[in-house]
Amino acid sequence: MDNSRKECVVGIDIGGTNTKYGIVNRSGTILSTGSLPTDAHLPFSDFSSRVTSKIIQKINLLESPHHCMAVGMGVPDGNFMNGMMHDPPNFSWTNVPIASSFSELFKCPVVITNDANAAAMGEARYGEAQGLDHFIEITLGTGLGSGLFVDGTVVLGHSGHAGEMGHIIVDYGGRQCECGLSGCLEMYVSNKGIMRTLKECLTKYPNSLLHSIPMEELGGKEIDLAFDQNDSAAIACYEYTGKMLGKGLATAVSILSPEAFIFYGGFSNAGERLLASTRESMNHHLMDVFKETTTLKISNMKEGTGAILGATALAWDVADDKIKLNY
Amino acid sequence: MDNSRKECVVGIDIGGTNTKYGIVNRSGTILSTGSLPTDAHLPFSDFSSRVTSKIIQKINLLESPHHCMAVGMGVPDGNFMNGMMHDPPNFSWTNVPIASSFSELFKCPVVITNDANAAAMGEARYGEAQGLDHFIEITLGTGLGSGLFVDGTVVLGHSGHAGEMGHIIVDYGGRQCECGLSGCLEMYVSNKGIMRTLKECLTKYPNSLLHSIPMEELGGKEIDLAFDQNDSAAIACYEYTGKMLGKGLATAVSILSPEAFIFYGGFSNAGERLLASTRESMNHHLMDVFKETTTLKISNMKEGTGAILGATALAWDVADDKIKLNY
Repeated sequence: MDNSRKECVVGIDIGGTNTKYGIVNRSGTILSTGSLPTDAHLPFSDFSSRVTSKIIQKINLLESPHHCMAVGMGVPDGNFMNGMMHDPPNFSWTNVPIASSFSELFKCPVVITNDANAAAMGEARYGEAQGLDHFIEITLGTGLGSGLFVDGTVVLGHSGHAGEMGHIIVDYGGRQCECGLSGCLEMYVSNKGIMRTLKECLTKYPNSLLHSIPMEELGGKEIDLAFDQNDSAAIACYEYTGKMLGKGLATAVSILSPEAFIFYGGFSNAGERLLASTRESMNHHLMDVFKETTTLKISNMKEGTGAILGATALAWDVADDKIKLNY
Repeated sequence: MDNSRKECVVGIDIGGTNTKYGIVNRSGTILSTGSLPTDAHLPFSDFSSRVTSKIIQKINLLESPHHCMAVGMGVPDGNFMNGMMHDPPNFSWTNVPIASSFSELFKCPVVITNDANAAAMGEARYGEAQGLDHFIEITLGTGLGSGLFVDGTVVLGHSGHAGEMGHIIVDYGGRQCECGLSGCLEMYVSNKGIMRTLKECLTKYPNSLLHSIPMEELGGKEIDLAFDQNDSAAIACYEYTGKMLGKGLATAVSILSPEAFIFYGGFSNAGERLLASTRESMNHHLMDVFKETTTLKISNMKEGTGAILGATALAWDVADDKIKLNY
């Protein structure tokens, strides 16, 4: 290694539409960030070479010379244990040895994990979970992801896929999920789930303010605004969502007893509008010993940076030999 | 310490009716065991002095002189973090500083945990879970307890009460539980739950062999025998129990992805009679990525010794300074 260069790591967050990255120094300062289209319909090799050359160019453009020690990546359906991207929805790439491919290009160790675990790691190192040994990060987007911290470490489980809270069943025989099960938590608490609930609420409340907005333009912001104006459909939508979310959280509390759930991304911007009914439902579905033992918080990480920061946290652990990779 | 004496630890398993103990050497050999009535209606001080004097007497009677390095206890509603026995059902003692009380009497460190965690620790050190980093011990008795191992360590959670799988809800609005919730797993999968299901099945199947036995004499053995003779009520009872158990296990797999569930005590003696339908239901309620990733096993620890062995495993960790106690 060239000792005249400072050390940095790269965090990459691969999304279905865009891939975001950040270059971070040892103190956690983001030296540079950027984004480029993922173009998941094109071959993987096209993607990997575009991303690598762009980031190496950015490192070379930093004010002082830096040496990239490791790269961490938040990868949809990415498996930390074997470095593989398995079969994520909306991607034409399946079973890609993504860690080793990028490692050849970057010429340094590359570590991957799934996007929810990356967000949890970012939260633990830089966000609301600093100092917490037991917490669960809930990522709200198209679906619902979760990253578990137990005794200060992310839980991967035997299969490497621990933390699929989006697919615990909160309504047996309920809404059909794409995964094949029915009544999965993410069918109620995610962009797709909440918008479906909203539609149902809108048919019940013909006087809702939200009828004035075309369905395809409706989202969290519009529901929040209507909620703040006491709109019945918006209130009913968040109440139902909170009730279902509270059921799922209570189940996780009975098993893991975390200190906090931290919500990141998407509908987490609804804040207390959604969390008040969630908290009530969670405590309602808990035995006494657990009531009021787990707090609900909104992440303070800027949307889009959570997974990047988490990926860099993981990259530093690899750079510092705290984690040994099998790939 | 007297160097001419060999080292041993004591494991104690406090039950509602009887308290069992074992004296164990470093290689895990049980040097002596015994049992005495708990008499939980009498004052705690009566219990603690009786137990201590009996065990010290037993240590003094061992073939060669031994020195007790530490005592580990499996305590109903016992909290490892603060050494307290909180408010277990069927005991007149509440909020007893049980670890420090026994520590004064034994004149050595005393560590406690709840009975399911103790069983899990015994399983990890001496039983079916040797070499497993991720497993969940399910203890079947009057209720259903669980002890979680993640990354080779028992999970206590933020409150110290992690692992209350008996109270995850598998049927919203279902059977009323003593804990105040309804539809808790232990209302279906425990002595009380299974006997209730059996009663329901017996009304459905008037020709069942089990009608010839008085209800108060019916238990696991009788159901197993009837099952083996293709008795419809016995088969329906275990099918329903397995269906509900599979739902609960699937939820835990989606969250923690353990390598195995290991069943200990009570109805676990039913073995494959119960596990076949449980496995089917578990896989039915799991998304593809988890199907067939978690095995179901029956503990190979003799009933009654599991929690004692686990408690001694914990005691050795304390004796060897691997665990620091706050009490």
